[in-house]
Parts: sequence; C-alpha cells; structure tokens
Amino acid sequence: MNDLYKNNKITKLLNIERPIIQGGMVWVSGAKLAAASANAGCLGLIGAGSMKPELLKSQIQKAKSLTDNFHAVGVNIPLLYKYTDEQINVALSEGIKVFFTSAGSPKKYTSYLKEHGATVVHVCASPKLAKKCEDAGVDAVVCEGFEAGGHNGIEEITTMCLIPQVKKVVNIPVIAAGGIASGGSMAAAFCLGADGVQMGTRFLMTKESSANEKFKNYILEASSGDTKLMMKKTVPVRLLRNHFADEIERLEKSNASAEELNSYLGKGRAKAGMLDGDLEEGELEVGQICSLIDSVPSTKEMIEKLESEYISAIKIFK
Amino acid sequence: MNDLYKNNKITKLLNIERPIIQGGMVWVSGAKLAAASANAGCLGLIGAGSMKPELLKSQIQKAKSLTDNFHAVGVNIPLLYKYTDEQINVALSEGIKVFFTSAGSPKKYTSYLKEHGATVVHVCASPKLAKKCEDAGVDAVVCEGFEAGGHNGIEEITTMCLIPQVKKVVNIPVIAAGGIASGGSMAAAFCLGADGVQMGTRFLMTKESSANEKFKNYILEASSGDTKLMMKKTVPVRLLRNHFADEIERLEKSNASAEELNSYLGKGRAKAGMLDGDLEEGELEVGQICSLIDSVPSTKEMIEKLESEYISAIKIFK
Repeated sequence: MNDLYKNNKITKLLNIERPIIQGGMVWVSGAKLAAASANAGCLGLIGAGSMKPELLKSQIQKAKSLTDNFHAVGVNIPLLYKYTDEQINVALSEGIKVFFTSAGSPKKYTSYLKEHGATVVHVCASPKLAKKCEDAGVDAVVCEGFEAGGHNGIEEITTMCLIPQVKKVVNIPVIAAGGIASGGSMAAAFCLGADGVQMGTRFLMTKESSANEKFKNYILEASSGDTKLMMKKTVPVRLLRNHFADEIERLEKSNASAEELNSYLGKGRAKAGMLDGDLEEGELEVGQICSLIDSVPSTKEMIEKLESEYISAIKIFK
Repeated sequence: MNDLYKNNKITKLLNIERPIIQGGMVWVSGAKLAAASANAGCLGLIGAGSMKPELLKSQIQKAKSLTDNFHAVGVNIPLLYKYTDEQINVALSEGIKVFFTSAGSPKKYTSYLKEHGATVVHVCASPKLAKKCEDAGVDAVVCEGFEAGGHNGIEEITTMCLIPQVKKVVNIPVIAAGGIASGGSMAAAFCLGADGVQMGTRFLMTKESSANEKFKNYILEASSGDTKLMMKKTVPVRLLRNHFADEIERLEKSNASAEELNSYLGKGRAKAGMLDGDLEEGELEVGQICSLIDSVPSTKEMIEKLESEYISAIKIFK
C-alpha cells in the first residue's frame, strides 16, 4: 500500500494503490490505456460507450493479457445505448468486477450488478443525483464538474462547488472529476472532501490512449478558453474549439432548434475527431484543463509526475 | 502572526493575519463589513462600485472609526464609472493604502496609485489578463472563476482550472476567488497554487454585511443550480434565480438582442435586490457556492469556523 493515501476509501473499495481513476472515454480508452492505468496502480476503465458488445469483449480480453492487475480494470457503460444489457453481460462474463455507469438512472442496473458481485459507481453532476445514486445502492459516485470534457450536467456546477455539496448529502465515497490534471488539483479535490479523483483529458494525453496523434498534438496547442460547453438544448457537451464547434456555436447564436443542432451533428463525429483525427469536422471532447497539459508521456510517467506534484503541493501544510 | 499561514505572500504583502480577502461587493460591503473583516484579521474591502465619491468618503471615515486595523481596510474600484478618478483621489486622501481594481485596464491607474504609495491588486478571469496585470505593475491578482457571483469573465474558466493556469504565467501572488466559502475550499485553493483567497458570498452572509435581511434569508433557501451565469451578450453576471433572472433567461432563450436585454435590465436593479430586498424584480448577484451556506454569523464567528474547517481539512496530509 502507498503511504500517501492511508485510510483512503477509494483505494480500499477498489483494492488499488492510488485513489486515481482513469475515466472511461469514448474512442480513447481501450484495453491498452486501461491496462496501463491498472499497471500504474490506478483503476483503468474501458470506455464501452463506443463499443459494440463483441469489441468490448475482445478489449476486455486484451486488457487481461496486458496486466497482472486485472482486478483494477473496469468498464464505463453509459446507460443509454441499445447494447447496454449485452455490454453488461459480456463484461460480467469476462470477469469484470468494477462498473462505472453514467447517464440513465442508477436504479436500473445497480442491483443486478451487485447481485453478480460487482462494485458499482455512478457518474453524476449534481448533489440531487448523487443522493439518488446512494439510495439506489451504488458503492461510490463520480461527481463531475462543469469544467469536465465531454457530456456534462445542465446545472453547470463546478468541481469546486459540487464536491462539498455532494459530501453534505451522501455518506458513500465521492470521486471528483473535472479540472483535475495535476498533483496540485488532486490535493485540492481531497481538501474539498473527495476520496478519489477521476481524470479524463490527462489520461487521454498519454502514449497508451487511442486518441489520434493529430488530436493529441492539437490539444498541446490549446489555450485557456479554447473549450466550451455547447449543445445545451440537447445533451450538453464540452468541446475543444475547431471548425465543427465554431459551426455549432454559430447555430446556437442564431437560435437554432434542438432538431437543427442534432441534424448538423449527425453521426460519427466523435469517432471522426478523436479516433480518426479529423480536426476540422470531428467532435473533440476535452476538459477545460487541457490547456495546462504540455506533454504526452507514458501513463506510468504521467502518474509518477502527478504524485511528485502532489507531494510538493501538500508540503505547505506540514 | 498566525502560524497556520507562515511564509504566506498575501499576509506579508498586506500586513494581515490571514490570507483572506473580503471581496468588495456593490451595495453589500460598506464600512461595517470592511471594518469587521479587518478586525477578524482579514483584508476588508469597501465596495466603491455603488458609491458616489461623497458616500465613499464617509464610508471610509466610518470604517476608520470601527477598527484599529485601518491598514487592513481597502477599497474595490471598478474602473468603468464616471467617478473613478474622484473615487481614487477620495480614497487616497482618506489614507487608504490598498486598492483592488476591477474591470477596465490595469494599465490605467496602477502607476498613479503606486506613486501614491498604494498596493494595487487587479481582478481578472483569464491567464492572459493576469499576465497583462503583472506587466502593468500590480502587486497581486485576484483570479475569479466561473462560479463566482456577480460580474464574470467571458471564457467561463472555473477556479479549479484558472488558478494553476495563472500560476504558470505570472510570478506575483495570486488570490483565488469563486466557489470558496469554507476552510476546505480555502485549503483547496492553496493546493491549486493560490497564495490567498477572496470570498464574496460568504462575507455577504454575515451580520455585518449590508445585504437586505430578506436577501440573506432567500440565499439560505437556495439549492444547487439556483444561480446562473447570464447576460453573456452584454456583461456576463452570475445571478440567483428569481422573477427577474427568469425573465432574463426567457429573453435569452428567445434570442433577445443585447439592446433588448439592457433595456429590460434598466437601472437600479442591483440596489433594489441586494440592498432594498426586492426579491422579485431586483438583481441578486451571488456565487454558485451560496447553496452551501446555511447561517448568517458575525464575521468573526464565520472566520473562526472557516479556520477550524481549514485545520480539519488539511489533517489528511499530516
């Protein structure tokens, strides 16, 4: 066990060395990243949102072959696709014991998963939903602030405000997400009351993530203010500025309807942008903290640096 | 000196016991609150934005009579009113040595103030402006995140993301603002790299603030998600939900122009809401953290509680 995190509820709950979760991300977090994260003492999540059941199965098998810490590999399943049932059953039959669920109701699958011996964590963006998650019997919640990349809550509550509010209403462990990409921000999350952190963009920016190299290089050039929470009329999502995002912004400014926005969005934009590297027409889901990231190290190196930043950040309190 | 904050750059710069700034707020932070804050070991700021020069003069004189720590009473002057020159000269002639300036360019008054022996701190909401402030010669910056109440930046950068970004580009001390109302969030701000914190809503919710009692009681009932950043077409401002804010939201959803919004806004709404307690038609400028505040203590009691929370939050690192 790592002395830095003694008595930590998340390391205990998930039997991992560090209270750090590699967030499940569509098109970006496959077997390679999840296994590298597990190998680095974190929890690695295969982002099932972009995978048909067969692909998810092969990705889980691949992850198993890449780590001796397979217990620290979980799946993130958004509860809104037609494949959800199949995804869950494939993951269970492949021996996955940790399920992070998002979107949809936490009531829907929690009992089923727990009956199968799994640990269940639901992602939420408001204290109200966090309380619902606790009532549904989940083991922990990820609380994701306004600054987080990708899909986001409608109340626009920032991590700084969300974590203390959630801690006030639930007793289960709380994992902070949104705006966290350094050891300093991990320590900050703990001060706010979080028991662990989930990072997306920081893990996206590692050698093992499946994000297209062009996409990674584009993020290296991002400045503050280059991401924006958009599509609030449909499903709010934080995007990195590019031609597609500018066009969405233009449509929103001209008061386009949800239908018009969805029609322009079409299908396949996230894959095009994040996996295939179409920086013009693709959808680039990235957190606001991206402008602070200036390198693409291996996952192991990234975690080592983060931990040394953490040690240095908390020195002021000694 | 307070042992909790040894080597702190803000306590040294301002010669105060605690690195805590009571933010200057229109209609809310007059002599009484500023003096109470100075008496509690913080920096108290008279919010000059809502004061004609004569009123500012009498408020400074009143504050002087209410504290032996007059050196810890400053003024906050938004650099966009016709009275700015007069306000600055009145404050200087009344012996004020600490100026927090906001809006407008930091280049405009900094040299003048420094020639008169004052300490100058400018409020900003982006790393780019923070760098400009440093170049203009200010002594420190307040960096205010998206979650802060009242007027806000256009880039929507949250405190969690803003502070590390600003620290990366400036060498002067950084004061974090936005989302801070407890000892835990103060510790979090320090982990992010801040040297001090500025709190608005938390100080508004004290016995000594001039906010109308009805307004204070209304805040006690606020839930998460009850504030919203609005008026992005004109000057972005975070407001607490009420009839007026709902109406602004309705206008924005129907794609009203900046002119239409300004025309509905009219004049005197902030005074009506915050000082006079018109909860229907008044403008209620409050930070997102307001839903966590459940009492209206004296400033002294509030700071004592905050400090005991701080001590408890940082225990995990010992």
